[in-house]
Amino acid sequence: MERTTVGYEKLRNYVADMLEKGLGYSREAAETGAWVLVEADARGHASHGAARVELYHNLIAKGKADPHGQPEIVSETPVSMVISGNNGSGFAAAKMAMERTIEKARQSGTCMTAVRDSGHFGMAGVWAEMAADAGMMGIALTNTIRAAIPLFGRERLLGTNPICVAIPRGKKPHFMLDMATTTVAMGKVEVAARRGGTMPEGWFVDENGKDLCDAGRALEIARLGASPYGGIVFLGGSGETLGGHKGYGLGLLVELLTAGISLGAPTFDAYSERCGICHYFQATRLDLFGDSGAIQEHVEYILEKLRSSPKAEGHERIYIHGEKEYERRMKSLEEGVYLDPATWKKLDEYAALFGMPRLEP
Amino acid sequence: MERTTVGYEKLRNYVADMLEKGLGYSREAAETGAWVLVEADARGHASHGAARVELYHNLIAKGKADPHGQPEIVSETPVSMVISGNNGSGFAAAKMAMERTIEKARQSGTCMTAVRDSGHFGMAGVWAEMAADAGMMGIALTNTIRAAIPLFGRERLLGTNPICVAIPRGKKPHFMLDMATTTVAMGKVEVAARRGGTMPEGWFVDENGKDLCDAGRALEIARLGASPYGGIVFLGGSGETLGGHKGYGLGLLVELLTAGISLGAPTFDAYSERCGICHYFQATRLDLFGDSGAIQEHVEYILEKLRSSPKAEGHERIYIHGEKEYERRMKSLEEGVYLDPATWKKLDEYAALFGMPRLEP
Repeated sequence: MERTTVGYEKLRNYVADMLEKGLGYSREAAETGAWVLVEADARGHASHGAARVELYHNLIAKGKADPHGQPEIVSETPVSMVISGNNGSGFAAAKMAMERTIEKARQSGTCMTAVRDSGHFGMAGVWAEMAADAGMMGIALTNTIRAAIPLFGRERLLGTNPICVAIPRGKKPHFMLDMATTTVAMGKVEVAARRGGTMPEGWFVDENGKDLCDAGRALEIARLGASPYGGIVFLGGSGETLGGHKGYGLGLLVELLTAGISLGAPTFDAYSERCGICHYFQATRLDLFGDSGAIQEHVEYILEKLRSSPKAEGHERIYIHGEKEYERRMKSLEEGVYLDPATWKKLDEYAALFGMPRLEP
Repeated sequence: MERTTVGYEKLRNYVADMLEKGLGYSREAAETGAWVLVEADARGHASHGAARVELYHNLIAKGKADPHGQPEIVSETPVSMVISGNNGSGFAAAKMAMERTIEKARQSGTCMTAVRDSGHFGMAGVWAEMAADAGMMGIALTNTIRAAIPLFGRERLLGTNPICVAIPRGKKPHFMLDMATTTVAMGKVEVAARRGGTMPEGWFVDENGKDLCDAGRALEIARLGASPYGGIVFLGGSGETLGGHKGYGLGLLVELLTAGISLGAPTFDAYSERCGICHYFQATRLDLFGDSGAIQEHVEYILEKLRSSPKAEGHERIYIHGEKEYERRMKSLEEGVYLDPATWKKLDEYAALFGMPRLEP
């Protein structure tokens, strides 16, 4: 029988076992990692889901990440922290950082935390959401692996550099903007390559910095990595006409707020000897600005005005950011988490490698 | 002789006289307003320059803004403020807000300030830049007049909602991202209408929410305002293929951080009886995260790596945000501020209205 869905808890336990037994994480770090990966699958973001065990395994196997590295606070003030991930799991660093950021914000009203020498922390959304779950505004930013091209350049110097901001609105789902600052992530290029091979202009440029619509060629450029030239472009595309300078500015801003202020590795220096990537977290109490309940009602008033406004021809719904993922997650909790065939295959492959039984629905 | 440029100081004094005598601002508010408007002209952003005296005059004439309104602090904590602009000049409210935000950040490390019941504060850049001039990171956000369409909608409910972030790098120009979250501002649509009448897809949608490339029609839709439908779209355009959901998310985020947390008027409620628009300001000391000098050097290291990287075919320079405007400003200080014919004409028109001599180069 074809495997499609699997229970949320079962999948989390299985992935935690995999991270513990296969990758050498502590049980606590493995459970954190499994939570983040399975949350991505449950919300419909397979690109950040359990199949990513491959990425984390490869980094440890190549000596670029230390499964035993423990995050530690380098310095702090009442409203800020600098944390070193000590080259350990990005999940562990992010969890420790956001938990303490929220705790400090409870005391001081707000806290901003720069993290360096960390690893891939999964989907940014879960970290900003922790603050929103605590009734605060949350921010999570990270730099990533070399993937994106500065406007008018041709070298992959920056990452997909996501921005995530969560704002509570009195009930779930929170307003949850969680976006790569590039037009798309590499996952979309892979899908385009499988589905006929063409991409729209505004996703990718070739080694000379010219728009490239051949997804197969794009994959070669990005995956082989033989050349540092060519890559995905920022929101707004490769020129100024559709605002490429704006997306590039947002991606660069994330680089400065992560690597810049943490004195950590910029994307172009990361993933050489070690991961070394950098994050930025923030939690801010709503009652800095008035009654928290009144603010959340006012936020919801704004959101509802948009939702209920007339729709464009051919569309039936205006979405608020976070709604799609929340609805998909509710469905996953009820009906099981859907894993695509590629994810099932990847999990089988790593189960075999780690001497684990294969996951059954 | 055709008038082209005018001395920076002369222009500032002239515009200040105009705001004082023609609009009834106090001398102090008039000087602040003139500074902001002339800085925009000096940096090459005529759309936010002296010709905007028309906008400010109209708002006062229609009773939507009070030239004598004084900003006041509604509430504060060590790291935050809420300010009411009391329906006065947005320049005055922004100046008072950012000055006190910086002062409080000196004490507490950071300060976040939500402003409501304010007016149009000009180019966002000057406000965030005040923090960077003080060695801090600065943020300035504002909602605006109804102009933009939520993704998959067709009603103009949101503004162009700009984001400005300034980060010092040890010397000028600071990193200065100053961007509308829409693909373009209305000024670009006007220019397109004059120059042949077509716009690229991704700038505007019609009353039914469909892409519109006829700039003349777009102007009719936006300017006549007979219908609330049709308008400019956010960065990434009217669909998800090029990331329209991301630009829309950024625009909405600005709405929530300005109107939402200040309990002020969202764009869709602003400019009815009174302006009532809302801003958000933040200043954050770099030394929250380590030695400020070392951080600024590290920021500059990242920026220089991008600047000096190989260029795309057909391009000779990779820009860092803020450089173009800085260079143009230096030229304006040296050679005079260039005003386009439309600006000269507008200034003459208002000089006549206010009984002032016309401005001579």
